[in-house]
Amino acid sequence: MTSSDSPSLARAQAGDWVQLTEAKSHRFFLIRLTPGQTLHTHRGVLKHDDIIGAVWGSQVTTHLGTPFYVLPPTLSDILRETRRRTQIIFPKDIGYILLKLNIGPGSHVIEAGTGSGALTTALAYAVGESGRVYSYERRADMQALARQNLAQWGLEDRVVFHLRDIADGFLERDVPALFLDVPTPEMYIAQARAALRPGGFFGALVPTTNQVSRLLQALEEHGFGFIEVAEILLRYYKPVAERLRPTDRMVAHTGYLIFARPLYMPDGPDAAPPAVDNGS
Amino acid sequence: MTSSDSPSLARAQAGDWVQLTEAKSHRFFLIRLTPGQTLHTHRGVLKHDDIIGAVWGSQVTTHLGTPFYVLPPTLSDILRETRRRTQIIFPKDIGYILLKLNIGPGSHVIEAGTGSGALTTALAYAVGESGRVYSYERRADMQALARQNLAQWGLEDRVVFHLRDIADGFLERDVPALFLDVPTPEMYIAQARAALRPGGFFGALVPTTNQVSRLLQALEEHGFGFIEVAEILLRYYKPVAERLRPTDRMVAHTGYLIFARPLYMPDGPDAAPPAVDNGS
Amino acid sequence: MTSSDSPSLARAQAGDWVQLTEAKSHRFFLIRLTPGQTLHTHRGVLKHDDIIGAVWGSQVTTHLGTPFYVLPPTLSDILRETRRRTQIIFPKDIGYILLKLNIGPGSHVIEAGTGSGALTTALAYAVGESGRVYSYERRADMQALARQNLAQWGLEDRVVFHLRDIADGFLERDVPALFLDVPTPEMYIAQARAALRPGGFFGALVPTTNQVSRLLQALEEHGFGFIEVAEILLRYYKPVAERLRPTDRMVAHTGYLIFARPLYMPDGPDAAPPAVDNGS
Amino acid sequence: MTSSDSPSLARAQAGDWVQLTEAKSHRFFLIRLTPGQTLHTHRGVLKHDDIIGAVWGSQVTTHLGTPFYVLPPTLSDILRETRRRTQIIFPKDIGYILLKLNIGPGSHVIEAGTGSGALTTALAYAVGESGRVYSYERRADMQALARQNLAQWGLEDRVVFHLRDIADGFLERDVPALFLDVPTPEMYIAQARAALRPGGFFGALVPTTNQVSRLLQALEEHGFGFIEVAEILLRYYKPVAERLRPTDRMVAHTGYLIFARPLYMPDGPDAAPPAVDNGS
Repeated sequence: MTSSDSPSLARAQAGDWVQLTEAKSHRFFLIRLTPGQTLHTHRGVLKHDDIIGAVWGSQVTTHLGTPFYVLPPTLSDILRETRRRTQIIFPKDIGYILLKLNIGPGSHVIEAGTGSGALTTALAYAVGESGRVYSYERRADMQALARQNLAQWGLEDRVVFHLRDIADGFLERDVPALFLDVPTPEMYIAQARAALRPGGFFGALVPTTNQVSRLLQALEEHGFGFIEVAEILLRYYKPVAERLRPTDRMVAHTGYLIFARPLYMPDGPDAAPPAVDNGS
Repeated sequence: MTSSDSPSLARAQAGDWVQLTEAKSHRFFLIRLTPGQTLHTHRGVLKHDDIIGAVWGSQVTTHLGTPFYVLPPTLSDILRETRRRTQIIFPKDIGYILLKLNIGPGSHVIEAGTGSGALTTALAYAVGESGRVYSYERRADMQALARQNLAQWGLEDRVVFHLRDIADGFLERDVPALFLDVPTPEMYIAQARAALRPGGFFGALVPTTNQVSRLLQALEEHGFGFIEVAEILLRYYKPVAERLRPTDRMVAHTGYLIFARPLYMPDGPDAAPPAVDNGS
Repeated sequence: MTSSDSPSLARAQAGDWVQLTEAKSHRFFLIRLTPGQTLHTHRGVLKHDDIIGAVWGSQVTTHLGTPFYVLPPTLSDILRETRRRTQIIFPKDIGYILLKLNIGPGSHVIEAGTGSGALTTALAYAVGESGRVYSYERRADMQALARQNLAQWGLEDRVVFHLRDIADGFLERDVPALFLDVPTPEMYIAQARAALRPGGFFGALVPTTNQVSRLLQALEEHGFGFIEVAEILLRYYKPVAERLRPTDRMVAHTGYLIFARPLYMPDGPDAAPPAVDNGS
Repeated sequence: MTSSDSPSLARAQAGDWVQLTEAKSHRFFLIRLTPGQTLHTHRGVLKHDDIIGAVWGSQVTTHLGTPFYVLPPTLSDILRETRRRTQIIFPKDIGYILLKLNIGPGSHVIEAGTGSGALTTALAYAVGESGRVYSYERRADMQALARQNLAQWGLEDRVVFHLRDIADGFLERDVPALFLDVPTPEMYIAQARAALRPGGFFGALVPTTNQVSRLLQALEEHGFGFIEVAEILLRYYKPVAERLRPTDRMVAHTGYLIFARPLYMPDGPDAAPPAVDNGS
């Protein structure tokens, strides 16, 4: 296949990330096309050289005859692949978190803990080259794994990795957004407040209702207002025109999302908290 | 109030967008701080000059004594405000759409129809200055309204507005992502396919199951694969630590989200569609 | 209209309960047909004598020309009408409660509190003439209201009303099923256990997650096992064949349902609770 | 163990149905206690004679030392056990169906198809000895299985089994309630109407949205009104007081429930249908 037969068609190039997806099972492999290399799948072997130059969206076939589609990878599939040693945040939650924390090109945001770097990846992608993600983690092995994951997608330059217990405080100040994905977020609200710009965006994810209650109490004690608690349910349908119906089973729970805004307390943290009505 | 009393605190400046939110009701006003101007609320009058220089997150008080918080606006609140003449897409759906269409800094994306520009705003925010949104609309009055909404947030330079019936086709080619928010998306799948890069990202939102069925059929006839149908339910909780419970009522339905990838058909659109298993 | 024109059609008789439902709004009135009486609606007047002899499912018309359907009442509509001075349990929850407590003809069941008698009505209907409902209430005014509601449907003979604080214990023993719809059910678990047959069916409804946690702890301390916590979401669709879709809004929360079985503790309540795995 | 040690405790007797539930796994066996018989479980052997006389809610131990609880069986567990050759209706749906069809002691109700008899069992239990279930099935083998299931619980006398294609019509007339659990309910609405009392209760369960649309159209064509379409979602929580949270996964879909009332058409089925507003 040469590029002469249809010059207008976009083709996969050496150096491109490719998602090779089996037509039947939707199982996929994420690879970076490198001349001379080989991919071994459960359905046979694919040479990178046979994929370089393929039209995006077309099929390539393993030596055993199984077709795979050549697709540009998506962030949500990359996030799925990141699923490594820790529970990761699901795409359904990440999309909403980005929106509620106002993350966009140029944003600065703190997150803890780094974990395997799934949310870090999504944040780094969204803030662009001019933005910055400050990511805290206590475990050196987790940080190393996350670094590797971010480097794989060329996003490591957008992330400042801190190996540090957030009980000792965050190193940044006046940051507009901060997200906690740690087991006991209620223990770090003073630290979060110190790092956040007043009026900024605080978010957290916790799995249990008991954690939500403890976090709500801590937020109120530290002068946060406009608190929201929500959960997002994603329900898939079988995509069959003549027999449309939801799938039989679904993910029922990943976690509760909590969002809040640190309010300015002119008399300091020991003064009475401001009288914001949180809907009680 | 002068900036000398605590130089490290970020303060609202002339030219900044501010979300003035009433503490009790959570009702808010979005304004751009302009020396000499005045805001008339249902709770009294606020002078812009009294807000300029205020610490973010602090309170200002109307001449009737009602406190409002000075907050940086969030995209999701801006989107709520955009709610004008048409049904707009909800934040819960927008966050997921951005993720599934792989939208980030530098992305190019087509959308139709423009409507009042809510999704346009979110897309323009996410693609940044280096990205581009191609937005199609048939009605001149709606386009004018959307242009005005986008200009308000300084995002109009990122959008190419087309006043055009998409039945006549899209003007761009090889675009990586395309979203349809129109009453009969199934009628424009050939046009969407012609504009999309093979392997690119197609998305649509439709309110009824009948529309989903028709769209699924059209997508399969035009060589789209890896089709997903989903709905997102957002459930809020009353944020009260000692009496945590969901709100009594919720939005039960906004629409069904459909995502698909155009696959490469070497023998043209009249050939048999490729045998992708959509999970039927 | 005489019964001669179509002798096989069932017709409303004097003494029958009738649900008169306006065709357009679905608003309805529940009345007992009594010769000589008159119903005054917001849409005009209907004479009982004009309804007596009407075919079930047919229309009668007010003096203002508004049509109403003559329908046999349903339990779920009766329960809706019972909605009086207290929060009542919703039909979606009642159906599941009856099933989980094994309620059927001849069943004996304790409930507290009586409230306005909605659940009492459903229980009394389901246990039949040979069954018995023991219903506890502290407030005399509520009990009087419930008595009146039950008497209206001719179900009062199936209910034993107790005006009593359940902190003082239930008066029955070895009852197979017991349901608590009170603000602090965790305070009455010892009393519930004393009244229940070992292996019997315990159920409760509470609105908040904090109450669920407290109740779970009390149940475990008192030797209950096979504990289930669940919530039921009922989602209505607009019944339009060509534009099928969920309603825009729905009831998001009524309460959490908890079910458990009292297990036999041969060494008494002070012994260690049996090692039932509740799925923790 | 003799009955002298605590004469007031209810004990399992020969002839009783017992649900023997393993403490850890919640796996259970339903048996009828018969002197001399033996139960072989995956955890060892239990002699019926060792269970006869046991206190309800107490433990018995297999010859391998695994404890099982001696519990009275519940209808919902019996229904789970009925899960045999066909997709059965789930308890969450059955409870609501019984309520919406007004089923109680003495009720008469038609159902089709019989299937393995799960709904038949629930209906037969609820109507009591004075009620009657008319159950239609085309396949002799399914009917035989259902008969056997019903006989097992002593409920067969409450059921009239018909081996008959309902395309040929139902044999009963003026029946107050009718439920269709068949693949194409829209084909039998004329037959359902002929069997139902005007103003009676019609219900159906279908898995796909396309079936809902077809059924809605058929119901409107045949003079049914007050149509409701709903789905019921049951979400379980892990019953742990200190870490309360929903289970990770749940059943996302069993089917759509449709309820309607046949209205009286004085001019026959060919006349224009009555103008009931179904909320379109």
